[in-house]
Amino acid sequence: MKRLLIITAALLANAAQAQQAPKPEQLIKWRQSAYQVIGWNTGRVKANVDGTYNKDDVIRAANTIAAVANGGLPSLFPASTETGKGWHDTSVKPTLFSDAAGAAAAQAAFGKEANELARVAQGGDVAAIKAQLAALQKTCKACHDDYRNSN
Amino acid sequence: MKRLLIITAALLANAAQAQQAPKPEQLIKWRQSAYQVIGWNTGRVKANVDGTYNKDDVIRAANTIAAVANGGLPSLFPASTETGKGWHDTSVKPTLFSDAAGAAAAQAAFGKEANELARVAQGGDVAAIKAQLAALQKTCKACHDDYRNSN
Repeated sequence: MKRLLIITAALLANAAQAQQAPKPEQLIKWRQSAYQVIGWNTGRVKANVDGTYNKDDVIRAANTIAAVANGGLPSLFPASTETGKGWHDTSVKPTLFSDAAGAAAAQAAFGKEANELARVAQGGDVAAIKAQLAALQKTCKACHDDYRNSN
Repeated sequence: MKRLLIITAALLANAAQAQQAPKPEQLIKWRQSAYQVIGWNTGRVKANVDGTYNKDDVIRAANTIAAVANGGLPSLFPASTETGKGWHDTSVKPTLFSDAAGAAAAQAAFGKEANELARVAQGGDVAAIKAQLAALQKTCKACHDDYRNSN
């Protein structure tokens, strides 16, 4: 009985560990998905401020960007994921892993501008939203230039 | 000069329209990505309540789920996307399109439970978070049973 309990406990510990340590392929798939969701929603904000503006739609889109941007993206870039395939081969440059301070600063800037976009979206001032979207996209571009292969 | 302006205006109008009407493949890719992000974050909440609990991590994960769940998923299922391929062939059942009221109710239940999880996460009561995660996952399963092919 004691042995069974020990085995069960070990299995449960393994299960918990497995849950906490997803495979590199899964992590890459998640991060590729997260950036797709960000792209979907920045496109929505842009379509609103360049075309027909809907305040609620912009708020929803900006809230989604802010949540994903600040929701733990760095945890999807552990050391085991410099190369590998999620939905497709990862586009990450090795510099993201070698330049931890720079990558953290780029991520922080992105999260900050995303939060600001969510704040500005609440106000409903289209020109201000447009300006803040541009500020956000500058942080996207900066990070892509430094840490993503253009392929 | 006038002609050039008209052509430019027409091109800009086309660009705006293109922006507002993404291709079915893109919409399917975005929705597949959105559900991956949801899966990533429900897994994070589960790992926290079953393993080592970190309040801030659960709050971030729950906020992301709530934002994506309420961020406009139905707009990624327009009539042109009953079939098609995003990252992979869509898993959606035709019933999602024929049973609009049922699909809307399933989506509303999902959004409601996701908001409740974000609320409960703030409290930091692990048992309550666990119970609410189960309530949320029940709405995931209900929707999958009715509107997603298991493949």
